[in-house]
Amino acid sequence: MSQHRQTNSTGKPVAVVVGATSKWQSHGRNTLLAHGKPLDDSDIPVGARWGIGGAIAQKFAREGFFVVLTTRTEPNSTTLAAAIQQQGGDCSIVELDLSLQESVATAFATIRRDAGDPEVLIYNAGYLEGRDLPPDQELLEYIPVEMFDTAQHIASRGPFLVAKEVLPAMRKKGAGSFFFSNNSRSLRGTKRKTGESLYYPRVMMRALAQVLTEEYSELGVHVANVVIDGTIDSPGTRALPKVQNRPEIVMNPVKIAEAFYYLHTQDRSCWTHELQLTPYSTTPSY
Amino acid sequence: MSQHRQTNSTGKPVAVVVGATSKWQSHGRNTLLAHGKPLDDSDIPVGARWGIGGAIAQKFAREGFFVVLTTRTEPNSTTLAAAIQQQGGDCSIVELDLSLQESVATAFATIRRDAGDPEVLIYNAGYLEGRDLPPDQELLEYIPVEMFDTAQHIASRGPFLVAKEVLPAMRKKGAGSFFFSNNSRSLRGTKRKTGESLYYPRVMMRALAQVLTEEYSELGVHVANVVIDGTIDSPGTRALPKVQNRPEIVMNPVKIAEAFYYLHTQDRSCWTHELQLTPYSTTPSY
Amino acid sequence: MSQHRQTNSTGKPVAVVVGATSKWQSHGRNTLLAHGKPLDDSDIPVGARWGIGGAIAQKFAREGFFVVLTTRTEPNSTTLAAAIQQQGGDCSIVELDLSLQESVATAFATIRRDAGDPEVLIYNAGYLEGRDLPPDQELLEYIPVEMFDTAQHIASRGPFLVAKEVLPAMRKKGAGSFFFSNNSRSLRGTKRKTGESLYYPRVMMRALAQVLTEEYSELGVHVANVVIDGTIDSPGTRALPKVQNRPEIVMNPVKIAEAFYYLHTQDRSCWTHELQLTPYSTTPSY
Amino acid sequence: MSQHRQTNSTGKPVAVVVGATSKWQSHGRNTLLAHGKPLDDSDIPVGARWGIGGAIAQKFAREGFFVVLTTRTEPNSTTLAAAIQQQGGDCSIVELDLSLQESVATAFATIRRDAGDPEVLIYNAGYLEGRDLPPDQELLEYIPVEMFDTAQHIASRGPFLVAKEVLPAMRKKGAGSFFFSNNSRSLRGTKRKTGESLYYPRVMMRALAQVLTEEYSELGVHVANVVIDGTIDSPGTRALPKVQNRPEIVMNPVKIAEAFYYLHTQDRSCWTHELQLTPYSTTPSY
Repeated sequence: MSQHRQTNSTGKPVAVVVGATSKWQSHGRNTLLAHGKPLDDSDIPVGARWGIGGAIAQKFAREGFFVVLTTRTEPNSTTLAAAIQQQGGDCSIVELDLSLQESVATAFATIRRDAGDPEVLIYNAGYLEGRDLPPDQELLEYIPVEMFDTAQHIASRGPFLVAKEVLPAMRKKGAGSFFFSNNSRSLRGTKRKTGESLYYPRVMMRALAQVLTEEYSELGVHVANVVIDGTIDSPGTRALPKVQNRPEIVMNPVKIAEAFYYLHTQDRSCWTHELQLTPYSTTPSY
Repeated sequence: MSQHRQTNSTGKPVAVVVGATSKWQSHGRNTLLAHGKPLDDSDIPVGARWGIGGAIAQKFAREGFFVVLTTRTEPNSTTLAAAIQQQGGDCSIVELDLSLQESVATAFATIRRDAGDPEVLIYNAGYLEGRDLPPDQELLEYIPVEMFDTAQHIASRGPFLVAKEVLPAMRKKGAGSFFFSNNSRSLRGTKRKTGESLYYPRVMMRALAQVLTEEYSELGVHVANVVIDGTIDSPGTRALPKVQNRPEIVMNPVKIAEAFYYLHTQDRSCWTHELQLTPYSTTPSY
Repeated sequence: MSQHRQTNSTGKPVAVVVGATSKWQSHGRNTLLAHGKPLDDSDIPVGARWGIGGAIAQKFAREGFFVVLTTRTEPNSTTLAAAIQQQGGDCSIVELDLSLQESVATAFATIRRDAGDPEVLIYNAGYLEGRDLPPDQELLEYIPVEMFDTAQHIASRGPFLVAKEVLPAMRKKGAGSFFFSNNSRSLRGTKRKTGESLYYPRVMMRALAQVLTEEYSELGVHVANVVIDGTIDSPGTRALPKVQNRPEIVMNPVKIAEAFYYLHTQDRSCWTHELQLTPYSTTPSY
Repeated sequence: MSQHRQTNSTGKPVAVVVGATSKWQSHGRNTLLAHGKPLDDSDIPVGARWGIGGAIAQKFAREGFFVVLTTRTEPNSTTLAAAIQQQGGDCSIVELDLSLQESVATAFATIRRDAGDPEVLIYNAGYLEGRDLPPDQELLEYIPVEMFDTAQHIASRGPFLVAKEVLPAMRKKGAGSFFFSNNSRSLRGTKRKTGESLYYPRVMMRALAQVLTEEYSELGVHVANVVIDGTIDSPGTRALPKVQNRPEIVMNPVKIAEAFYYLHTQDRSCWTHELQLTPYSTTPSY
């Protein structure tokens, strides 16, 4: 049994980060795809080593939450969990495959049993399907059905399944935060360009956030879609030529995590339901 | 073999209407759900007996197209096909289950063989999942997964599969129209109210239209999302109390069909990619 | 007195085109600014010689309307009026300065007296303020107040004044069309680039269209904002290098005029309140 | 000379609040209009006595800013200024009539001389034109031109003039915040209902924020449109029947002010350019 399947023995409030690690972390899938090898992250600030999910997890742990890191396979998250614990925080790792209804159900049963009902749920799962299609296959007709299905599972059906797991308890309590970590391609359907993931299913994640906002806000649950409108600092992105040439385009994940925490602490008389974050050096997407 | 599986022997241009019949036709599923029995449609103008899909099919047949009616089961469309033929038009019926990748592939192989590559594809498929949930189950947490999956198949994955079938030929020809018949709930995620379908997946249909517009317009293919922003005249809706009380809220499907035909005939120097149609008596959705 | 101040002696329905000529016509202000001299338009189709306003005027005249051309100074419109009359149409010219409340009042009093209450009003007025600012003065801080004021008069206060003149009669009759000829910069505020007009006040024109749609549709008046999303064929634009190099980006004003006429003839059970027109070769603005 | 025309003798950073008082304060114009008399505000928390402008002024003063309160006439702001000083803050009052170009120029010359270049500018000016039109005069045709002109001066031309005054120094310094305090009617044009102001010119304020975001962000100036999507607690609103019946719809101005301060302190790698604040009990506007 995992050393990270810890219980929330001191009864802290619970924050679940779905997709707590980054595909751009030192040995992440995007890092391997873009750079051909793992990268050393020892000289990168600890807040930026695991992208947004890792920064959010560290922030909420520091603010007194018991943080549950969900991930496809536990080894993805062990260095992050160790960092949180070194910082004095409490966390556990729960494996979760968003494409399987049973996996979602099992994971949240585990979370409820070992940690308790989440007070905060941050949906940060992503996918990279589409990134390795060649330049002459940009058009939708070249997207394999399996690729669409994966994107759909992560961006549309997965959030639906997670929402069904955590909202009933939040509703009964009349409190809780359900935040989506999304990107600017969720704002409308746009052409996929070479090197990009198949992003348009993220529009559905945003639509779900809008549905849940209308349905659950008046019941005391704070729902928000966070549009992260740029490249996030991480071991893998930091080494990209476009970032080496223009470091001012990179977003600090520690500051993004603070934005999520700000949302969580907003007074309920003035809640924000969509928060877009854009580097000063670029024009905001719309 | 069906009498309606006719071939396009005179080589007319081909228009395919996916979902050519209406759940509000005389014996449609919504009609049965709302009124408890089939309704007599003999005093209703023939243009309005099968909702939008039927009106579009009749319009394109009248304009010289060989029209392919797709439907889950052929009997749904036989009266419509007969009406088209009585009006001097040519059409065939092809069965199609949008939730099955193989069914989509088989249906379009049949269409290409018996009719030819479509010049016009109108995606008019709908679903009624969610309509019979009781008033105390409006919230998303009460939506069964199967209901989400069906909505997702019709509104998101189905259009993706159909696009992959018809766009390559349109692209090679540098011409063609791919239109989505959508509704106002496709504009953003909104709360589902009692009696309504689970509409928010329709946002994905619109996002796909936006993707395809950016990708295929410059290749000569006209893509458009048509937002039908009201109740459509049909046997089933005409008998609803809200329509009996305010007949001015009902939209004439014959005129909606003319709007689709107008789009198809637009000069390519000035194409419209989203067309919203709203009765004068109501405020346009946004 | 002008030969063009004709009366509508045969009682035709009345269409008023506010801003009936083009700054890109053969001797228009933009033409002179861009090319340094008037251009010969004798080999250009008559439908395209005066931009959108001229094409709309010709179209409605051909459809049986008595067309009133408003313009700052009558000589701008005499060749257009002559063309309409040669085509067998009826029209008159009325001078109108949109920045002066009294001028608007006087012009519409003249129109009502000589032609009758408008059945159709197309607001096509434009301005070119900002176009000649040098490259180092792109920022808003360099826009002179007078330039803002002119843009504001044409795009915001002028339409308000015109609406007050024509809507009461349309409301009483329960019929009429009030259409705005706008551009893609009306969709949101964007940075002005060198060579462009100060476009962001056009957002107000669109907002007014939205207000009037909500207020007057149910009273039988069709209001619409038409977003002309590209470069319009005309003597002045046809000679621009960017058009010479990519003729496929140019929009045919005759077809744009047909779109306006289509809107006017829509059945009121399915009205469109915003119509965007984009050349196939470019990505639609949003 | 006013006791409040103090100089920023200790060289604090400067925050200017244009329209620092509320039409709903104890003796404000809306309070008098709605309640027929001034209201006692002695039992209302000091943070809520002057609406958003007053709360923002108090917040920035507490955070160490020298705050400049602009107002049409100084007596509107004297109680607010006294409260700030009692809290240990520093502020001054500057009279400003946004409809007069010279008044704007004079006021900002005074601010620059007595306080220094603003680091923060919050445009919080409002108007109540339209509120007292009777129920049978909801339509735009009944809006007097003078009413439009006032709304236009406050919502469109005024912000343009203020932007021209403060942005050059922010640009040169490569830092500064220019925030608009706006409402939900700025999101699109909507029908004015009885009792409401003529809100649609606020769309232009938002469009200006979008323009300035695109132009000045890369120069280091943070521009944002804040959409305050509900009724703000104040002496006048607290006494309204709709608020007495549903106190949960009221927004706490102290928390709104914290949102402005949060925006000002955002890291420039992740700036927000539009922030909507909605009470949990209501559906967000769009």
